[in-house]
Amino acid sequence: MRFVSFEAEGKASYGIVTGKGIHDLGARIGSVVPDLKSYLKAAELGLVPAATAGLAADYAVGDIAYLPPVTEPGKVICVGLNYEGHRLETGRPKQTYPTLFARFADTLIGHNVAIRRPPVSEALDYEGELAVVIGRSGFRIPKEEAASFVAGYSCFNDASLRDFQNHTHQFMPGKNFPGTGAFGPDMVTPDEVGPLGDLKIETRLNGVVVQQAKLEELLFSIEELITYISIFTPLAPGDVLVTGTPGGVGFKRTPPLYMKPGDVVEVEIDKVGQLRNEIAEEQPKG
Amino acid sequence: MRFVSFEAEGKASYGIVTGKGIHDLGARIGSVVPDLKSYLKAAELGLVPAATAGLAADYAVGDIAYLPPVTEPGKVICVGLNYEGHRLETGRPKQTYPTLFARFADTLIGHNVAIRRPPVSEALDYEGELAVVIGRSGFRIPKEEAASFVAGYSCFNDASLRDFQNHTHQFMPGKNFPGTGAFGPDMVTPDEVGPLGDLKIETRLNGVVVQQAKLEELLFSIEELITYISIFTPLAPGDVLVTGTPGGVGFKRTPPLYMKPGDVVEVEIDKVGQLRNEIAEEQPKG
Repeated sequence: MRFVSFEAEGKASYGIVTGKGIHDLGARIGSVVPDLKSYLKAAELGLVPAATAGLAADYAVGDIAYLPPVTEPGKVICVGLNYEGHRLETGRPKQTYPTLFARFADTLIGHNVAIRRPPVSEALDYEGELAVVIGRSGFRIPKEEAASFVAGYSCFNDASLRDFQNHTHQFMPGKNFPGTGAFGPDMVTPDEVGPLGDLKIETRLNGVVVQQAKLEELLFSIEELITYISIFTPLAPGDVLVTGTPGGVGFKRTPPLYMKPGDVVEVEIDKVGQLRNEIAEEQPKG
Repeated sequence: MRFVSFEAEGKASYGIVTGKGIHDLGARIGSVVPDLKSYLKAAELGLVPAATAGLAADYAVGDIAYLPPVTEPGKVICVGLNYEGHRLETGRPKQTYPTLFARFADTLIGHNVAIRRPPVSEALDYEGELAVVIGRSGFRIPKEEAASFVAGYSCFNDASLRDFQNHTHQFMPGKNFPGTGAFGPDMVTPDEVGPLGDLKIETRLNGVVVQQAKLEELLFSIEELITYISIFTPLAPGDVLVTGTPGGVGFKRTPPLYMKPGDVVEVEIDKVGQLRNEIAEEQPKG
C-alpha cells in the first residue's frame, strides 16, 4: 500500500494511492485522524478504516501537490557514512556505531517542491537516501523485532550546505536550512517493497546518474539502526530515519559539483518511488 | 518576572512566581493559552493577561512539582565548546563558528526531578549551562536585534553519556537519553536578570564545586548565537538555546568523575536560579 500526504483544493490531507488515483482519507476521517502521523498512531492502537478494498479515487495523481509523507515527524534522525563508497570518499575511519544527526521537521518538503538554495551559500549538494518511517512506539527494540517497527519506506534527498556542515565537527547547520529535506513522493509499506537488498538507489542531476548503489550495501541495516537508535531515544509512529547516502556526492568531486537554481535532481529507489525536485533560489522572507 | 511550568493537584499548568507564591495562569487562561510556549506565542501577538500587578498566589512554591519551563520546545539547540576552559580540556581547536547539536524535547526534565542513568552506561557526566528561551519568531536575525528575541533565562544541566557521545564524531546519542536534560527551576525575564557578564555560573556535585565561570567567559555571546543559528533555521517562541558549559567536566578528570545514583547535582546561576537534581537509575520500561 502507498500512503501520500498532499494538498488539494487548498486543503492539506492524506490518503492512499491506488491504480485509480488517490483515495482521500483526510476527507473521510480527518476530523479524528488528521494526518498520516496520527493515522500511524491510530493503527498502532488497532484503529483502521473499516474498508480499504476497492477504494474509490477522489483525485488523479496529477491533481495534488505533494507534501512530505509525514508532515510533522516528531524526530528525523539521519545517518552519515552508511555506504562504504561514501565513507571512503569522505576519508572517515570505519565506524563501529552509526553516525547520527538530527534534522528539524521544518526543513522538509515534498515531491516536486523546489529545494531552496539560501543566499548565504552556493555549496548545495545532493544526498539520495532511503527514508524509513516508524510505525510503532518502542524503546530498546531488539534487533529481531526491529523490522516490525517499520511502517514504510520513501525516497529522501538530504540536501546539504557543505560549507555550513563543515563550520565545525557537528553537522547541524549544513543539514537544517529550510526547504532542503526532500521527502517522498509517498510512503510504501514493507509488504509492497519486499526484500530491500537487491533494490537499486540512484540519484540523477539533470538526468545524469551521480550516485548509484544497491540497498544491500548499507553498512548498518535498517534493523541495526532501529536497535541502536532506540537504545538512547524512544521511537514513535511518524518518526523518520534517513539511512545514509552512497558515494558520488558533489563536494568530493574535482571540481565540486553543486546544485544550482534551475537544476533538477531525482532520487529513485526501485519499488519505493522516484522523488523529483527542482532547485530554486530561496525567496527572501517577508 | 519569573515564569514556571509545574504540576499541582495532578494537573500540568504554568504561572508566575512572585514573593507570595505561584499565580496559576493555566487555571485562568489555560483553555486558550495552555502552556508557556503558547503564552510566549500569544505575547508575541500582543495578547497578555489584563492585569499582572498585585497577583494573588494559588500555590506555595513548595506545593508544586516542577516541569521544564518550556515543556515542549520546538527546537532545543545546544552549543559545545563555548567556554575557553572547556575547549582546552577537550583538546578541540579554536572555533570560528559555534559548535551545535540538537536535543529532542523528550529528554527534558524539571527542577528536583531525578536525572536518569540508563542501564547501558555509567559514563553520566554533568554540564552546567545557561539556557535561553526564545520569545519571538525570527529568521536571519541581525546581531543588533538579537537581544530582543530573548524571552528569558534558566539553568540547564546538559547531562551526557560520554561513551555514547563519542561512539562517532556526532554527539547525538550521548545527548539524547530520556531524563538527561535538566532545565529550570523557572524562566526569568531579561529585565530581572540585567547584564549577564558579571554573573557566576557554578555546578556542584554533592556540594563540591566542579565547574565555575562568569558568563562573560562565553566565547560566543547570546546575540552571536541567535544571529548565527537563525541564518540556517527559523527560531520561534519557546525554542531553547543551551549555551555551553565551562571547564571542569567529569570525563576529562583523572580519574573520571561520573554521576551515580544517589548523587545530587546543582547548577546555580546568579539572579537566574538554582537547579537541583538527584541521580537515579533509569527504571526499566513497563
